[in-house]
Amino acid sequence: MLKLDEKGLIPAIIQDEKTGDVLMLGYMNKESLRLTLSSGEVWFYSRSRQELWHKGATTGNVLRLRSIVKDCDSDALLVKADPAGPTCHTGERSCFFQKLAQDDTA
Amino acid sequence: MLKLDEKGLIPAIIQDEKTGDVLMLGYMNKESLRLTLSSGEVWFYSRSRQELWHKGATTGNVLRLRSIVKDCDSDALLVKADPAGPTCHTGERSCFFQKLAQDDTA
Repeated sequence: MLKLDEKGLIPAIIQDEKTGDVLMLGYMNKESLRLTLSSGEVWFYSRSRQELWHKGATTGNVLRLRSIVKDCDSDALLVKADPAGPTCHTGERSCFFQKLAQDDTA
Repeated sequence: MLKLDEKGLIPAIIQDEKTGDVLMLGYMNKESLRLTLSSGEVWFYSRSRQELWHKGATTGNVLRLRSIVKDCDSDALLVKADPAGPTCHTGERSCFFQKLAQDDTA
């Protein structure tokens, strides 16, 4: 059984199946997990908009599902996917591209 | 500036620098991030024990720091590391090894 947080969410690491690059960290609820499995494309729950979020629905940059595993504690997911385009809204392939700044550890 | 959650934590994805495997998802607070940067080994904040956690301090299976980047929203970290041994407490190399079960989506 998955361990969801107090908001009913579980973090989902998205990894490019081909390159191994980590593309983003999103959050899923049970419904987005079910939609991901049934549609074959990754759905999240947007914490800011508080709604289900079909990643790439407007841009076409969907994440095609390849596999999902959970961790030893069942409180995190690793989703391997084939991205149809850049995953980040900035146009970068991955959301992880920013160096730490001095005030990040202050 | 990093965006910490209401508990002062930020999720940190640990990726094996050599193999590209995602090893675990941990949580850091500012102090564990500072200790990670100053010591060159990964420190977390344990949510269950509510204390700083030097990963591998008791087992020797430390995570040697290679790089840290943050994501576009500054609310998640990607830590590349060189693991001295299995990362998972079960003895597996990665904490992500469990298939989804039927009750995970129920």
